[in-house]
Amino acid sequence: MNHTLELTKALINRNSVTPEDAGCQQLLCNRLEPLGFKTEHLRFEDVDNIWLRRGTKRPLLCFAGHTDVVPTGPITDWDSDPFNAEIRDGLLYGRGSADMKASIAAFTVATERFVKDHPDHRGSIAYLITSDEEGPSINGTVKVVETLEARNEKMDWCLVGEPSSTNTLGDVIKNGRRGSLNAYLTVKGKQGHVAYPHLARNPVHLATPMLDELTKMQWDMGNDFFPPTTFQVSNINSGTGATNVVPGTIDIIFNFRFSTEITSEQLQERVTALLEKHELDYDVKWVLSGNPFLTAKGELVAAAVESIAEVTGTKTELSTSGGTSDGRFIAPTGAQVLELGPRNETIHQTNECVEVDDLEPLEEIYYRIIKKLLA
Amino acid sequence: MNHTLELTKALINRNSVTPEDAGCQQLLCNRLEPLGFKTEHLRFEDVDNIWLRRGTKRPLLCFAGHTDVVPTGPITDWDSDPFNAEIRDGLLYGRGSADMKASIAAFTVATERFVKDHPDHRGSIAYLITSDEEGPSINGTVKVVETLEARNEKMDWCLVGEPSSTNTLGDVIKNGRRGSLNAYLTVKGKQGHVAYPHLARNPVHLATPMLDELTKMQWDMGNDFFPPTTFQVSNINSGTGATNVVPGTIDIIFNFRFSTEITSEQLQERVTALLEKHELDYDVKWVLSGNPFLTAKGELVAAAVESIAEVTGTKTELSTSGGTSDGRFIAPTGAQVLELGPRNETIHQTNECVEVDDLEPLEEIYYRIIKKLLA
Repeated sequence: MNHTLELTKALINRNSVTPEDAGCQQLLCNRLEPLGFKTEHLRFEDVDNIWLRRGTKRPLLCFAGHTDVVPTGPITDWDSDPFNAEIRDGLLYGRGSADMKASIAAFTVATERFVKDHPDHRGSIAYLITSDEEGPSINGTVKVVETLEARNEKMDWCLVGEPSSTNTLGDVIKNGRRGSLNAYLTVKGKQGHVAYPHLARNPVHLATPMLDELTKMQWDMGNDFFPPTTFQVSNINSGTGATNVVPGTIDIIFNFRFSTEITSEQLQERVTALLEKHELDYDVKWVLSGNPFLTAKGELVAAAVESIAEVTGTKTELSTSGGTSDGRFIAPTGAQVLELGPRNETIHQTNECVEVDDLEPLEEIYYRIIKKLLA
Repeated sequence: MNHTLELTKALINRNSVTPEDAGCQQLLCNRLEPLGFKTEHLRFEDVDNIWLRRGTKRPLLCFAGHTDVVPTGPITDWDSDPFNAEIRDGLLYGRGSADMKASIAAFTVATERFVKDHPDHRGSIAYLITSDEEGPSINGTVKVVETLEARNEKMDWCLVGEPSSTNTLGDVIKNGRRGSLNAYLTVKGKQGHVAYPHLARNPVHLATPMLDELTKMQWDMGNDFFPPTTFQVSNINSGTGATNVVPGTIDIIFNFRFSTEITSEQLQERVTALLEKHELDYDVKWVLSGNPFLTAKGELVAAAVESIAEVTGTKTELSTSGGTSDGRFIAPTGAQVLELGPRNETIHQTNECVEVDDLEPLEEIYYRIIKKLLA
């Protein structure tokens, strides 16, 4: 009997679209409490979170994950009920199968095996599980981390179960993420009639040379772990719709995905300097989604790289690419943070699935990581 | 009794928002037919137009105007009913008072006087009156001109009653207008996630260097009669609203107000060359609102300049500034075209008005122009 497969199916069969947990967390508690895990339910507003810990000593290895899933989209687009796990041609279908119920199941089964084999392991094992990773991420991991920090409860290693693999299980692990910074910029001109441009000041014309410089600017060169910082305009809007009116303002929203070679403050300073250089009349609002983080070396990365090689024969690649994850909330506490999970090819899509044959190897990788760190 | 004032009031009291004529044209027919004018009603779709002519010979002096007015906006913003002419402090208030019912009335009364004084004048006098100058301008002057051209009925001089005066009556007359050309440009990129910019092609980034060049380009130097051609972006839009999506396309609408030093075709060629130089993937649609026209010299300008000087003592300024007018449809027939009317300070605004004391001088200017040309 494949325990990871069974638990993954049980989790998929719970309709836990953000912020619903739908009983997933209780299922984990039911499995882990008999092994000596102490449960703390941390509900913030409409979000269920749990903190489970076995042991009181350090080092503390934490598994971080989320039970919530993204919406299914039109259910008729699916070949089977997204909340009724089904295996076809070696693939286990269901919303959240890859992101990230398989990881949760695999880690839980790995933990059960490890505790049975090493009941007196050193340090502690913990679970930080939220039901708001796919949503606003306001009452989830970040609040749990604040609770832990307030009482100085520190993780040493945090393994995030996000689906990191690209082509084969374990081929990519994420040992960091870029920062993300959004700017909401309004450049002001003066509205008028296009026939009398000398009486107006066209904000599109005023902003364009600045924008041209922005798009051509080199922000940093990246480093061994991060690609160079990127700048992208996501939205630009100006005009009344009429063809004979010079608009009064232009709104530009742009995003930086930034490396550890530059800070959010430095990015803001450089943009502000450019706006000033162009003598623009502007308002700008900055929203920092997350600072970059990096776990370059250390026991966690080593344990993961070795375990993957042992189980799959794959030489894994360390990557910091992709979107943000809850790791951004944990890394600032000083913990080593790593993301390792199944293939991400179908996440957030119709007919999301994981390969059934990847489930036991994933469980085995997690088992070996726990063993290398805490046996 | 001030006949021009009375007729202006009678016209204002008819609610003739585009395309409604509301009986204004019939009022003119009633006045002019007894003088020997032959009336031709030229209704196209929902637009009333009239062509009135006294005489069959050339030279033909035509007065061109429109009975339609722009909407009032919130009527409660007006200090008096916009369709009930009212004099306060020497100003005659009402929608269309300045644009351009006063001109129509003044020319009509001037014609009455002139025909009485010179029943056997040389050449012909005509009126081309539409009720769609403020609207789409599709079934108005342009259609009447096509009708005249089809039977080779040519104007020599066309006096358009648009309110040309700026600070005092007759200080400015328009002896031409710039052309107006709109472009609807879509630059195509490839949509994607801002975290993976190498998999997307951001159309904002692609278009910005081109747009920067466009805004800085010198199109011509203008000439004695026209200011240099101007370029203005009226609308620019790109983005899905989301902050993490690289947009797939950018839409830019821009307008040229162009002099006689460049043609619509040359403008299109230069923009197309720039788009090609930047190797952009684009669609562009061009809409020519009107070619520039100029009546630099000739009997009509001379008659107007002299008449204004005689009546007001003002040395008038010849100008080609401002928006488009129906003159653009008449000038291509070869006629000399001139715009002369009251002050335009309040046109299209709440509490539109003309100075009562300008009405008789305006009538007198028109009278002298007719006399100089046809007596």
